[in-house]
Amino acid sequence: MREGSSCRQARESCLRTFKLLVQYDGTDYVGWQRQAAGASIQGLIEEALALIEGRAVTVQGAGRTDAGVHAAGQVASVRLETALDEATLGRAINANLPLAIRVMHVAVMGDDFHARFSANAKRYEYRIWNGPVCPPFVRLYVWHVPQALDVEAMRRATTSIVGRHDFAAFQGAGSSTHSTIRTITTAEWRGGGSTGPLVLSISGDGFLRHMVRGIAGTLVEVGRGWRAPDALTALLSTGQRQQVGRTAPACGLFLMEVDYGDER
Amino acid sequence: MREGSSCRQARESCLRTFKLLVQYDGTDYVGWQRQAAGASIQGLIEEALALIEGRAVTVQGAGRTDAGVHAAGQVASVRLETALDEATLGRAINANLPLAIRVMHVAVMGDDFHARFSANAKRYEYRIWNGPVCPPFVRLYVWHVPQALDVEAMRRATTSIVGRHDFAAFQGAGSSTHSTIRTITTAEWRGGGSTGPLVLSISGDGFLRHMVRGIAGTLVEVGRGWRAPDALTALLSTGQRQQVGRTAPACGLFLMEVDYGDER
Repeated sequence: MREGSSCRQARESCLRTFKLLVQYDGTDYVGWQRQAAGASIQGLIEEALALIEGRAVTVQGAGRTDAGVHAAGQVASVRLETALDEATLGRAINANLPLAIRVMHVAVMGDDFHARFSANAKRYEYRIWNGPVCPPFVRLYVWHVPQALDVEAMRRATTSIVGRHDFAAFQGAGSSTHSTIRTITTAEWRGGGSTGPLVLSISGDGFLRHMVRGIAGTLVEVGRGWRAPDALTALLSTGQRQQVGRTAPACGLFLMEVDYGDER
Repeated sequence: MREGSSCRQARESCLRTFKLLVQYDGTDYVGWQRQAAGASIQGLIEEALALIEGRAVTVQGAGRTDAGVHAAGQVASVRLETALDEATLGRAINANLPLAIRVMHVAVMGDDFHARFSANAKRYEYRIWNGPVCPPFVRLYVWHVPQALDVEAMRRATTSIVGRHDFAAFQGAGSSTHSTIRTITTAEWRGGGSTGPLVLSISGDGFLRHMVRGIAGTLVEVGRGWRAPDALTALLSTGQRQQVGRTAPACGLFLMEVDYGDER
């Protein structure tokens, strides 16, 4: 029997919007976004939710992380009929997900909440292990750069990307966006030494595809002495992608937080 | 042509004893020790060294970690003909090993050095994630205990194992050793809370098979209120293995350091 319009209305009226805080080890996945082939984070969460809802659902993610990229603070939104409370829903989703993907927190939001469109800013980290030997326990979560790096030169070069710039040079091949202008609010290196990774923390109102990995790859070339610390200033003004350094490997990149301006 | 005795003598005279500091993610291995079937850490290091030496070699490990157990400070000794210096030898071994197994440091030792027989003491850590959801990035390196734990009761119970005791009750099934008496010099819990694992650090002159995992499993039962904090005192005096708690999972156990009394 076809579902009547009154039935659809009743269903719509009992839908609630949920915000999911999601962490994942991206090593074995094709990325956040559902793809024709391969396991995606979005696809697996949608499958877990379909078992709970008894119908297909679509989940919106704040950021589309690429294959192999990790997240410690991805945010997803989804509209559900379920009567489960937040904590129980979180446990139910996790029970249907691999251990490499975890819903860390669930909250009911206003119906206008959308993980992507409501986001004000995001923070990423790019993690480098800079030493002769990469410890086994971090090997999946860093880029191993065994050569000496001039971290001071990298810090100086990093200051030039803060502010409102055209990041066209740092956009991955095949991308298409309305505008390549983004505002980076903070970009700084911390850590390093023999005991932990060297970490680039970078926040902004939005990021182009491969942008953080292009910046990290170019900054490592500054650190190795292949480029001057003012190299990024030139790249931002010319916009020439072929001048950008190697795109740093996916395994060093983490989506750390998404800011909705309401969480202080 | 058979190798003459003068030839063997010449070879023996140019052998040097090396100490290898080894870290490994034990997730995918059958343990330290070479086995009839499956990849072992010892076996893979011996294969890597055989490529360098052009002959079969035997590596001695300080401790035989079980399947799935990790090491941040395993020590191995081996006698080699190679003329490579220490750093180059380390790089050569690592070039022939999976990234989950790394030689962190190589040192030439006196010929009487033996990783197992020269060791004075070892330190293990047992790591627990105590919270409702286990973050993906630590899932292979902790035991996830979602239920609330009374850590104070666990600390009180832990003090009773420090000192010289008969640990027969904590020995894994099928073990046979001359003596089950061991001296534990320190045993303490640190960490926990929402940001990191709860870690039992335990040092002693030797450990029976499954001993740390039996202690950790029993202490968690104290933490859950299933046993009184003085339960371990009773176990040490009766020696009854069937009274011991569940053997905690291998993935939470790390061999952290081996002490040769010469490294302060």
